[in-house]
Amino acid sequence: MNIQKSIAPKAHPDIVWTRMFSELDRDGQGLNVQIRRTIVYAIQAGVLTGGTRLPSSRHLAGLLAVARNTVTAAYQLLIDEGFLVSRERSGIFVAAQQRYVPTSLNTCDDDVAQWSGRFAVRPSAQRQINKPRDWLEHPYPFLFGQFDPAIFPTNNWREAVRATSSVKEIYGWAGDQIDDDDPDLLEQLRVQVLPKRGIFAGPGEIIVTIGSQQALSMLVQLFVGAKTAVGIEDPGYPDVRNMVGLVTEDVRHLSADAQGVLADDVLSGCDVAFLTVGHQCPTTAVMPIARRKALLEAAYRNHVIIVEDDYEADLALDGEAELPCLKSLDHHGQVIYVGSFSKALAPGLRIGYIVAPKPVIDELRVLRRMLLRHPPTNNQRILATFIALGHYHQHLRKTGTVLAQRAAILNNCLPKLLPQCSWRRDAGAKSFWVEGPEAFDSRELVRAARERGVLIEAGDIFFDDPDAGRRFFRLGFTSISENKIAAGLKILGELIEG
Amino acid sequence: MNIQKSIAPKAHPDIVWTRMFSELDRDGQGLNVQIRRTIVYAIQAGVLTGGTRLPSSRHLAGLLAVARNTVTAAYQLLIDEGFLVSRERSGIFVAAQQRYVPTSLNTCDDDVAQWSGRFAVRPSAQRQINKPRDWLEHPYPFLFGQFDPAIFPTNNWREAVRATSSVKEIYGWAGDQIDDDDPDLLEQLRVQVLPKRGIFAGPGEIIVTIGSQQALSMLVQLFVGAKTAVGIEDPGYPDVRNMVGLVTEDVRHLSADAQGVLADDVLSGCDVAFLTVGHQCPTTAVMPIARRKALLEAAYRNHVIIVEDDYEADLALDGEAELPCLKSLDHHGQVIYVGSFSKALAPGLRIGYIVAPKPVIDELRVLRRMLLRHPPTNNQRILATFIALGHYHQHLRKTGTVLAQRAAILNNCLPKLLPQCSWRRDAGAKSFWVEGPEAFDSRELVRAARERGVLIEAGDIFFDDPDAGRRFFRLGFTSISENKIAAGLKILGELIEG
Repeated sequence: MNIQKSIAPKAHPDIVWTRMFSELDRDGQGLNVQIRRTIVYAIQAGVLTGGTRLPSSRHLAGLLAVARNTVTAAYQLLIDEGFLVSRERSGIFVAAQQRYVPTSLNTCDDDVAQWSGRFAVRPSAQRQINKPRDWLEHPYPFLFGQFDPAIFPTNNWREAVRATSSVKEIYGWAGDQIDDDDPDLLEQLRVQVLPKRGIFAGPGEIIVTIGSQQALSMLVQLFVGAKTAVGIEDPGYPDVRNMVGLVTEDVRHLSADAQGVLADDVLSGCDVAFLTVGHQCPTTAVMPIARRKALLEAAYRNHVIIVEDDYEADLALDGEAELPCLKSLDHHGQVIYVGSFSKALAPGLRIGYIVAPKPVIDELRVLRRMLLRHPPTNNQRILATFIALGHYHQHLRKTGTVLAQRAAILNNCLPKLLPQCSWRRDAGAKSFWVEGPEAFDSRELVRAARERGVLIEAGDIFFDDPDAGRRFFRLGFTSISENKIAAGLKILGELIEG
Repeated sequence: MNIQKSIAPKAHPDIVWTRMFSELDRDGQGLNVQIRRTIVYAIQAGVLTGGTRLPSSRHLAGLLAVARNTVTAAYQLLIDEGFLVSRERSGIFVAAQQRYVPTSLNTCDDDVAQWSGRFAVRPSAQRQINKPRDWLEHPYPFLFGQFDPAIFPTNNWREAVRATSSVKEIYGWAGDQIDDDDPDLLEQLRVQVLPKRGIFAGPGEIIVTIGSQQALSMLVQLFVGAKTAVGIEDPGYPDVRNMVGLVTEDVRHLSADAQGVLADDVLSGCDVAFLTVGHQCPTTAVMPIARRKALLEAAYRNHVIIVEDDYEADLALDGEAELPCLKSLDHHGQVIYVGSFSKALAPGLRIGYIVAPKPVIDELRVLRRMLLRHPPTNNQRILATFIALGHYHQHLRKTGTVLAQRAAILNNCLPKLLPQCSWRRDAGAKSFWVEGPEAFDSRELVRAARERGVLIEAGDIFFDDPDAGRRFFRLGFTSISENKIAAGLKILGELIEG
């Protein structure tokens, strides 16, 4: 960022100055004041940054068709006030280290109330996941779903980036693909990624999305109308609850036990159900095969469309076998499968996908084209190359080993360091689901722990009734290094003990 | 793509084989047939590609717990039928050049009718823009909105890519940004891109989107409910018509003349209006300043939110001045501005943005997080670096010169080569809007021209009533090289003449 700032041009072309002063009222009072106010506003808005060179007073006077004296006087006052500095023989510049007050020159009515009356939906009125943005700066980030810079395959990724930066490759990705995906990525998904999960899909049965988040939101848009009965898990992924809740009032909490969702009347009454059978979010419960088959049979009998969010797929931990996903057991095409590279590679890339029968994918392509055309093609191409070069599977193996070690350390430390708590982590999961003692409130622990550099996730957000999740919290271990785990848990134990 | 295929591993791990044969019914009839059918399906689905090595018959028999003879017999029959080949001392492989019939192994019920009854929305039932995917292979692509490989700043782009591939930079973009944008890109937009259009925005007043398409679709989602009165242009951008039409029935066609939309009662009755005042889509009409100011006054009086889609901004053609956008004239924060890098740089990157008052951006961030979290951060970072290095403005200057020459050639050739037609192209537009003779149907011209290598866009899609657009077509010149223009127009002239 510093490099970029230092090489950024520090002078503006004339058109910026004329537009900045376009409101100048030459018949009004105090041209000098008007000019000064505009410059101060621009500095406070951060549009004129320290070191930017202003036009000479003669030049600006010409551009604005005002007397040169007016500009000279305005500049002199701004220099006296410390907004500008004059450097001999080189001109007048914006002073360094101006107080930076982001604001706007174009808008006056920032009234939230005025705008809120105009919104057709109010997503901000829902309870939102609130993850710390500065997690990299905390020593003990027990977070789920972030990436670990120490594991990211930097050199291999760069090789894939280089390979897709040739002139010929750029021709392949720079254009508007309309509603298409990169054929290379579809091929790699079909031939290398999905078969390992037992999914054998034709190219017309896959669509790439901006992470699994967009996969889920498009499926809600496609399948959920105002009267659709939608089954969701409780506790479950809060964003699915929010997406569905914005559209229909017929939201049904699926019955569940320690093995996950039950194939009972609640499920049978649904039009669509959103499930995380691989590792239930957030409890990590792995649904046994028999339950999976029973769920499918119930779905077939009652025409329930199942959306399977397999968010943690691919990243098997050493020695922990993964069960076949629902989609691989589905022989009526009634399971719609959602996958992602966010957990296994990097969330910042935003690449996910949907596997579904061709009529569904066809409709999703039209919907996606309308919503945003297609995910950026250069990233699709880089990822396809990364997989084709064998780097993805190598990365999965390496990451599986690292994460298995971390899971083992947590398993060893938890009984000693968090004796007040019970926990669960099923095979392959990248987090522990922890329940605190009777009067415990994990939201207070989150705040106290953060002050001591420990980041954990409170459980309430996963529950429809926040109070039902009061005692729970999630400990992820994809971002925390081995040698920090014990010390972080020790702090948590002390805080819980009070 | 060839490189990738040749380096792709040509053998699968055991788990792929066990999952591929997971349906094997050992109590059923004809294990040999079941095995053959599964392999043939996998080949036809393209999951087993030419050159893939199969497990030895002994190994597969072990994996599937069947007699080795069964596998040997199945392999032999598939070799006889040409699906497999045996290579001495190296094993059994999928034969090359198998007929490729994309299908699926997982789904049986591909019935479109069955699925269509489950969809809450049917985007595919709307009229869609239908652009040829193979445009690069046609000699005369008079297309709008595609990019020209010959102009793309390959080396400078690569420099920006390299600069953002360092370990430190990867740490900056690989994580989950939740609802944030890359601060570098926001800074470059605020300080270098927007001021040239007279927009001086604070960082809280900008959000990055997956191209202007996502900007428009999010604004529809945020502002348009079932009863919202929405003004759109007719002819206008078909995707806005489709997006709005999926949500509200109160769609109003704004009155317009040759200078664009009028500030009359229709506009005054709207809650929201979607406008392209910079270059009206598709007529290219540039709205004069006085009309822009009158529109704004009407919008203020009647509380109409204006969404300004400034899709062609930045790319000024040599010597053709651009007027200030509506947003730069708006002093009540009632204009929501949509911009994009698709036209000026590359549509495949999918980077656009919205400038709006902070309460609107705040709500859009929550909405965007729910829909897809955030646009890929690596691309935001690359673009920010590209702009900061001065490459973007250099690219705009170069492209402006090239496009101005093409526009001049079209201006010269049209009277001679298309004497039957009239046309319009206002200053700065990157397309001509052409009207054919009385009985003319541009849809027929599109088909006939395509067969002779000339790609043009029929005008009907832009009109609410397709027949009203029958005589119109659009000639874009962002993708066609100078020396092809006259020959392409000559073919069009011959076809129109019949």
